[in-house]
Amino acid sequence: MPGNTFGTLLKLTTFGESHGRAIGGILDGVPAGIEINVDHIQHQLDRRKPGQSSITTDRAEHDKVDMLSGLFEGVTTGTPIGFIIPNKDQKSKDYSHLKDVYRPSHADYTYQEKYGIRDYRGGGRSSARETAVRVAAGALAEQLIPEADIVAYVKSVGSISALVQSVPNRSEVDQTNVRCPDLEKAKEMELLIQSLKEQGDSVGGVIECRVNGVPTGWGEPVFDKLNAQLAKAMLSINAVKGFEIGSGFASAEMKGSQHNDEFLPSGGTKTNHSGGIQGGISNGEEIIFRVAFKPVATIGKKQETINKKGEAVELEAKGRHDPCVVPRAVPIVEAMTALVLADFKLRQKTNKI
Amino acid sequence: MPGNTFGTLLKLTTFGESHGRAIGGILDGVPAGIEINVDHIQHQLDRRKPGQSSITTDRAEHDKVDMLSGLFEGVTTGTPIGFIIPNKDQKSKDYSHLKDVYRPSHADYTYQEKYGIRDYRGGGRSSARETAVRVAAGALAEQLIPEADIVAYVKSVGSISALVQSVPNRSEVDQTNVRCPDLEKAKEMELLIQSLKEQGDSVGGVIECRVNGVPTGWGEPVFDKLNAQLAKAMLSINAVKGFEIGSGFASAEMKGSQHNDEFLPSGGTKTNHSGGIQGGISNGEEIIFRVAFKPVATIGKKQETINKKGEAVELEAKGRHDPCVVPRAVPIVEAMTALVLADFKLRQKTNKI
Amino acid sequence: MPGNTFGTLLKLTTFGESHGRAIGGILDGVPAGIEINVDHIQHQLDRRKPGQSSITTDRAEHDKVDMLSGLFEGVTTGTPIGFIIPNKDQKSKDYSHLKDVYRPSHADYTYQEKYGIRDYRGGGRSSARETAVRVAAGALAEQLIPEADIVAYVKSVGSISALVQSVPNRSEVDQTNVRCPDLEKAKEMELLIQSLKEQGDSVGGVIECRVNGVPTGWGEPVFDKLNAQLAKAMLSINAVKGFEIGSGFASAEMKGSQHNDEFLPSGGTKTNHSGGIQGGISNGEEIIFRVAFKPVATIGKKQETINKKGEAVELEAKGRHDPCVVPRAVPIVEAMTALVLADFKLRQKTNKI
Amino acid sequence: MPGNTFGTLLKLTTFGESHGRAIGGILDGVPAGIEINVDHIQHQLDRRKPGQSSITTDRAEHDKVDMLSGLFEGVTTGTPIGFIIPNKDQKSKDYSHLKDVYRPSHADYTYQEKYGIRDYRGGGRSSARETAVRVAAGALAEQLIPEADIVAYVKSVGSISALVQSVPNRSEVDQTNVRCPDLEKAKEMELLIQSLKEQGDSVGGVIECRVNGVPTGWGEPVFDKLNAQLAKAMLSINAVKGFEIGSGFASAEMKGSQHNDEFLPSGGTKTNHSGGIQGGISNGEEIIFRVAFKPVATIGKKQETINKKGEAVELEAKGRHDPCVVPRAVPIVEAMTALVLADFKLRQKTNKI
Repeated sequence: MPGNTFGTLLKLTTFGESHGRAIGGILDGVPAGIEINVDHIQHQLDRRKPGQSSITTDRAEHDKVDMLSGLFEGVTTGTPIGFIIPNKDQKSKDYSHLKDVYRPSHADYTYQEKYGIRDYRGGGRSSARETAVRVAAGALAEQLIPEADIVAYVKSVGSISALVQSVPNRSEVDQTNVRCPDLEKAKEMELLIQSLKEQGDSVGGVIECRVNGVPTGWGEPVFDKLNAQLAKAMLSINAVKGFEIGSGFASAEMKGSQHNDEFLPSGGTKTNHSGGIQGGISNGEEIIFRVAFKPVATIGKKQETINKKGEAVELEAKGRHDPCVVPRAVPIVEAMTALVLADFKLRQKTNKI
Repeated sequence: MPGNTFGTLLKLTTFGESHGRAIGGILDGVPAGIEINVDHIQHQLDRRKPGQSSITTDRAEHDKVDMLSGLFEGVTTGTPIGFIIPNKDQKSKDYSHLKDVYRPSHADYTYQEKYGIRDYRGGGRSSARETAVRVAAGALAEQLIPEADIVAYVKSVGSISALVQSVPNRSEVDQTNVRCPDLEKAKEMELLIQSLKEQGDSVGGVIECRVNGVPTGWGEPVFDKLNAQLAKAMLSINAVKGFEIGSGFASAEMKGSQHNDEFLPSGGTKTNHSGGIQGGISNGEEIIFRVAFKPVATIGKKQETINKKGEAVELEAKGRHDPCVVPRAVPIVEAMTALVLADFKLRQKTNKI
Repeated sequence: MPGNTFGTLLKLTTFGESHGRAIGGILDGVPAGIEINVDHIQHQLDRRKPGQSSITTDRAEHDKVDMLSGLFEGVTTGTPIGFIIPNKDQKSKDYSHLKDVYRPSHADYTYQEKYGIRDYRGGGRSSARETAVRVAAGALAEQLIPEADIVAYVKSVGSISALVQSVPNRSEVDQTNVRCPDLEKAKEMELLIQSLKEQGDSVGGVIECRVNGVPTGWGEPVFDKLNAQLAKAMLSINAVKGFEIGSGFASAEMKGSQHNDEFLPSGGTKTNHSGGIQGGISNGEEIIFRVAFKPVATIGKKQETINKKGEAVELEAKGRHDPCVVPRAVPIVEAMTALVLADFKLRQKTNKI
Repeated sequence: MPGNTFGTLLKLTTFGESHGRAIGGILDGVPAGIEINVDHIQHQLDRRKPGQSSITTDRAEHDKVDMLSGLFEGVTTGTPIGFIIPNKDQKSKDYSHLKDVYRPSHADYTYQEKYGIRDYRGGGRSSARETAVRVAAGALAEQLIPEADIVAYVKSVGSISALVQSVPNRSEVDQTNVRCPDLEKAKEMELLIQSLKEQGDSVGGVIECRVNGVPTGWGEPVFDKLNAQLAKAMLSINAVKGFEIGSGFASAEMKGSQHNDEFLPSGGTKTNHSGGIQGGISNGEEIIFRVAFKPVATIGKKQETINKKGEAVELEAKGRHDPCVVPRAVPIVEAMTALVLADFKLRQKTNKI
């Protein structure tokens, strides 16, 4: 059964391979009568695009979104919004040497095993190129939830961890190429990434996301809890290995008397270990969560692996890839967050008559 | 829009409040012709039930599952399996003092805000009592995937962390009340829990789950990745604050050259940082993940909070609750894992003709 | 993949076999804060129950619905409503002779072929007993759409067709056992049914359903059109062979200049060939449709058929069955209509922000 | 909630307005490893396209399908198949006079009421142009079910009804412009349509569809019965007012002793009043059903109607439309049938392990 649709009332269905003719999607369930800022969509795509700075891949993609339907004179009509992003810089020849080889920690092997066939060019459907469609849809979804202010940023790269106390805005996040608002640590991170790039190696990192302005009531127990859906959204992004909300893994070491968020007569809670969600439903406090990304699997160093026949082969990546994915993953995390929140906003409209 | 259904081909829909007449569910999509061991279902329910040891709540629930349909002479018929677990030890009077009070870090406030009404008795629908239905369904789902061996256990309680190198079986896990197979650490954990129980406090913990025997090919990119669905499943469990798979958050500190799992000509991979999943699809290695549980919100200590009118009130819990949820959450984690895996096994049947 | 759930925002999932311990369902998505009249649910069940008059089966079922969750002090809480109807008059021995025989125009053969196993007692899951759950859920769903007035009645039995010009209410429909508001034709119908009962034969009929009060805007193009969902709902009822809305099959013989419903400056349309739906969306006019039921397959006459081994056998029904299903199917048609409409009412809440 | 997705395991999601940049869709759930004949898809599109003969609209559309993903070297990869059909002959000026007018029996009024905005050019999303996407997807879906032979044809136009005893193939159906295999009646139908075209009027008709080769076991009770899903599929097509399967409405006049399909020791049933489906599951016999289409609402004659302000206006259609929709609707009926059947074929794969 297919798994290319995300959401329930606001539904994104996507298609497209890294080196096919185009990638794209259909966003169904967008309410009618909303004026859409297409420039904002393009802006978020630009924040994700490869080749945007010295610490990302040198491969340049021209990710221009074409809106094909669902808008009339710039306003949503309640009908599905179809859009495509043509693949321009395909260079298929770059990848022919990977036809029969399974790259370590990539999806080559599992796709081949699952489907018995795969489009090996650039990772095909398993390529992170697919996330451009998510970014486009998420940037549109954001426009359905003007009450919510979503900001993601790089919290750590390798073992360099930033201190981010007040909530930055996106311009502040974009001050540095690494998209970390702690400028000092950002500099360290960039140096680390630059040095790994030169070594043909890569490194992981953590993105933190904060959402302010979400009213109480979003989230649908018992299975479609807001935190559960956020977790799924994040783990569905390439290279993500972990998710935690509010106090997260640290909560496991705490006592209830420390951890409980006492309600204040003046409104809100004294602490926010809950991360803005209780019982799977937003409580009006800041929603805050962290997402762990593994180091990019494509590296310039030689690696041992096998081919389709199971024979040992030596692999040396020739493609141009990011040494660290988190700077470009910031808008992806924001997009998936927007898709989750906009969906729950709509779902909440049906809980009372 | 409702959120009480989990799964796509194997679909569990649940109902029931803590102090209603019964809780229960419908498991739809169970293939025909499978002999069901109802004792196994009861056994897993017994592992979850309150009052099973000195370190759990003193409140005893008699969780007896009644299978109402879908089985004929002990064999599944392909029709939906309806079942109920009657609520016996209801003692509704215990909870009347909570009618207008919002307990810190509970779902009282968010349910009231979301629905404008709530069954305040024992937490109503937000009570972890709901997870008994998941355990029953999961124990049935396990019987659809005999190839998979699912074992969860307590990895840490507070800051006491176990070392578990070889995969234990469930009997080994059940050797201690705390369900930690590292017997030395288990003893420490029990002492900690016992001491917190006496203080009227609670503590969090981490459960680790390992699944062996899953063949390659389970998981449905790009959104319904196996890791994404596991993350959702786990975050949908009460009190869970984090999820990580394979290398998890630690991967963020690693380099690609360290982290990549090289394929071996002899089969499998040299390391398993991927945690058994690549590109959202199982790769035949051990699936291993960890789930962080916050400390139980109900504590015996006095807490400041507010009532429905927003006035400051002081709260002292009278109910009987667990000082640490992880020992009883082990079968819940196993159940949700089984529901996820059985669903993907069925989904995989449709990817080739 | 399972097919036991109906609806999208208001979701009914059902379970249960004719001779199992109970049948029942979960109605998820009922908005919070609605006072539910359980007597009305029981009343509709009574209109469906067997043995209610001389022209129905002599077999008596005591269809008492037990509400298990989702209501608190009589009011919906927004959580799923679980309910069961115990099977009391099971008499399993009546059916043992059917273990290996395929009754003509029943589902014995297809269930056996599909699942490789079947609960042969009373038709198991394929029994129309299952519709009692629909009636209970539909009678609850009706209470979410007080603006809509749903009335179904018998339009024809065999070749006896009633003339029903003004919309009757349910009491008027219930004036006769046959549930036809044309009293003269009703008498003829009853005589026909009575005579066929004596002959051990059965007869088909048509139910017409009218809904007044539905506002404009319900229905979701392009696939989930209101008429499409009504068609599915009706064809999902046992024994239904046809559905037509508004002008229906007669429209195929008409010219556009005759058929078009001109809009009136005073509101509404001059004619209503559209049957209250245009482009799949309600237009505020009366929704009117007809549903054709085949004659009940169980008859007292001898029939040729085969057994599981494919051998010719002679069959003579021993069970007690209805000679004509339409009088008892009236509340089933109303129930499915209510489920469809209440779902679309909720869906319409999300089309504008 | 959106309604632009059809199917469960094989899922078609569509987008596009009559005069937007393109229409298109995503077909998700196509199993991997199937060689796709794109010419066949184009062929079915050509059978639907406007302007193909003297009895269709003079408006010509160049419906060229572009496959964007999901195929690698002509073979399905198990990933979603995205495709678009550009809108070329848009001529938006033709429709500007309809901006504020509600055409009788069109969806102008209901779309405006539902969404508060509509793309009035050529009917926007409510235009039958949308069905081109269904035809493309259906022609692909057909290639997943080589065992099934689907043939639809015109059974009647106005009151001229054909006699079709043996099952024709598609070439035989296409022998006449009207797509009726009874050549004598076909001539009469063409004359009628031609004469109505000259009068600026239109007429309805009935399409009959037969499917041979479907094995036993397709269809998912109790709600997703094969007949229920076919009914929904057909009623979701523009202009459809009725659906009947097998004996259909005529069954309502029959006695059980006449109607029952006795099983034969030699295999199959003596008669086929069931239309190939019993209890919602295919029984291996021919599936046969009929679909009633109303006369096209756009006519050349003057009509009374209202504008957006509710004022009386006179309307005279200027667009070029079909006088009778059924000849071009034949491939649409086949496409929706193929989508339903292929979905159930996949669903059946999960009913046994």
